Amino acid sequence: MSHFADRLLDRLQARGTPLCVGLDPRYVSLPRSLQMRHGDTLAGRAMAYEEFCSRVIDLVAPLVAVVKPQSAFFEALGPCGMKALWHVIHRAKAKGLLVVLDAKRNDIASTAEAYAEMAFMVYQADALTINPYLGSDSIEPFTRIGRTVGAGLYVLVRTSNPGAGEFQAWPGGDHLLQEKVAQAVTSWTRQHLGQSGQGDVGAVVGATSPRELARLRQLMPEAPLLIPGYGAQGGKAADLQAAFDGQGRGAIVNSSRGILFPYEPDERNWEDAIMEAAQRAIRELPAVQ
Amino acid sequence: MSHFADRLLDRLQARGTPLCVGLDPRYVSLPRSLQMRHGDTLAGRAMAYEEFCSRVIDLVAPLVAVVKPQSAFFEALGPCGMKALWHVIHRAKAKGLLVVLDAKRNDIASTAEAYAEMAFMVYQADALTINPYLGSDSIEPFTRIGRTVGAGLYVLVRTSNPGAGEFQAWPGGDHLLQEKVAQAVTSWTRQHLGQSGQGDVGAVVGATSPRELARLRQLMPEAPLLIPGYGAQGGKAADLQAAFDGQGRGAIVNSSRGILFPYEPDERNWEDAIMEAAQRAIRELPAVQ
Repeated sequence: MSHFADRLLDRLQARGTPLCVGLDPRYVSLPRSLQMRHGDTLAGRAMAYEEFCSRVIDLVAPLVAVVKPQSAFFEALGPCGMKALWHVIHRAKAKGLLVVLDAKRNDIASTAEAYAEMAFMVYQADALTINPYLGSDSIEPFTRIGRTVGAGLYVLVRTSNPGAGEFQAWPGGDHLLQEKVAQAVTSWTRQHLGQSGQGDVGAVVGATSPRELARLRQLMPEAPLLIPGYGAQGGKAADLQAAFDGQGRGAIVNSSRGILFPYEPDERNWEDAIMEAAQRAIRELPAVQ
Repeated sequence: MSHFADRLLDRLQARGTPLCVGLDPRYVSLPRSLQMRHGDTLAGRAMAYEEFCSRVIDLVAPLVAVVKPQSAFFEALGPCGMKALWHVIHRAKAKGLLVVLDAKRNDIASTAEAYAEMAFMVYQADALTINPYLGSDSIEPFTRIGRTVGAGLYVLVRTSNPGAGEFQAWPGGDHLLQEKVAQAVTSWTRQHLGQSGQGDVGAVVGATSPRELARLRQLMPEAPLLIPGYGAQGGKAADLQAAFDGQGRGAIVNSSRGILFPYEPDERNWEDAIMEAAQRAIRELPAVQ
C-alpha cells in the first residue's frame, strides 16, 4: 500500500484544491424532503444521513480530493448509524475520494489497537483523527497498524474552539503544551516519510490564529496539516498562508456546515447550493500545484 | 432522575465493594467454546462478545455495583459490535448494575452533544469517560446533556499507561497539567453536587503512583474517582488509600483482564475462575460502608 502522504498529494494535485468537505449530517439541517422520506427514528435518521452524504459525495467528488465524516453524528444513531457510516465511507472511496474519519479516538495498548482496527480495517478510512493526551505510547498502536495499510493519522495539536487554549496553551518552561505535542508529532512523522517528503502522521491545527499556525508549522515541517474552523467557525483563507508551501501543498482545509447547509431545510435547490458553496470555497483557497 | 453520585454511593453501599468489572472482551482470550460456537467473523465475534459479557454480568451482578464496557473492542467489530454493546449495557442495567461506558470521547460544540446523546440517550450508560484536551467548552455539552438524565462523567486526568506523564505531567509554573485539569474538574464537579456531597463529574486517575493519587484527590475532594490499572497493570490495593475516605467511599477500582481472563481459553471451568477472581479482588480492596 502506498504511503498516505503520497496518495494525499497525488489526489490533491489532481483536484488542485486543499478543500476537504466535512460530512457532519445534522438532522435538523437536512433538506426537509430527506427528513420526510425516512421518518424521525434512529433508523430513519441513519437512512437520511446515508442518502444525504452519498448525494454530497457524488456532487463534490469531481471537485475535491478528501472528505471527513464526523463519527459522532453517526454514532449518535446507534448501530444503524454505524452501518450508514460504513456505506458513506465506501461510497466516498468508490468515487476516488480519500476519507479522513474524524473520531478523535485515543486509549492505551490493546485498546488503542482496537480503535486502529476499527478505523483502518473495518471502516477502511484512509486516515483517523486522534487525541494525544495519553502520550506517545498511546499513539504507537495507531501508527503501527495504520502503516500496515498505508493509512495516516491527524493528531489534535491545537483545536479551533474558543476554549482550546485552556490546556493546549499550558505554558511549561519555554514553550506551550501544544508546542510540545507538535514536537512529538514531528518525531512520529519522521519515523516514516513518503516520497513527497511529508509523513503519515499529521496534525489538526485550528484556523483561528495565523501566528499560532505559523509557529506550529515551523515545529512540524513534514506533517500534513488538517485545518478545521474554516468558514462557519470564523477562519479566513488569508490566515492559512503559513500552512502551505509556495505550491499550495502541506495542508487540507475542512469546511462542513458552510458547504453542507448553505440553505434552509425547505429549499428545493439544495444540491445547487452545495455545489456553489464548494466552488466558492475552492476559489477562496490557494490552488494545489 | 436522581444524581449520579447518589445512585453510585447507594449501589456501592449495597454491594459493599468499590470493585468495578471492566468488560474488555478480547477475542483471542475468550473461552474456546464461545469462539467455536459463533465463528471468527465480525458478526460471530460480536455474538461471542455479547454472550461472554452477558455471562460475566450474570456472575458478578450479585457481587459488584458497577461494570465498565470498553467501547473500542465493540467498535472494532463494526455495526454488529455496537449492537452487542447495546445488549450488554441493557443486560447490565436490567441486573441492577451501573454502567460506565469507557469511550474516552471528546469534541466541540454540537459534535460533543452528539457523543453525549450517543452515550446517555442511545446506549443509556450511567456514565461516560471523556478526554479533557479540548478544554472546558468541550466538556459543557457533556455535563449539560448528562444532567438531564442523571448521568455522570469521568474525565481523564492521569492515566495508567507508562507514558502517561509525557503530556499530563507537563509542568506549567507551579503545577502540572494534570493538576490544572484536576482543578478544572473540581469547578465542573461543584456545579452540581449530590446529597452525598460528591459531584457528577469524576476523574480517571491511574493506580500506579500513590503520591500522585493523593495529590490529585486533594485537588478534587468531591470528584468520584475511577481508578484503572488495578491488577493486570500493576496497581496494588495498598496504593489506593488516598482515593477513599475512612468508610471506603469516593472511588471505584476497575479490573478487566484480571477478572475476565484468569484462565486459558481451553479451560472448561472459566466461570468458576471469574467468580474466584472477583471474590479475591473484593477481599483485597477496602469495603464500602
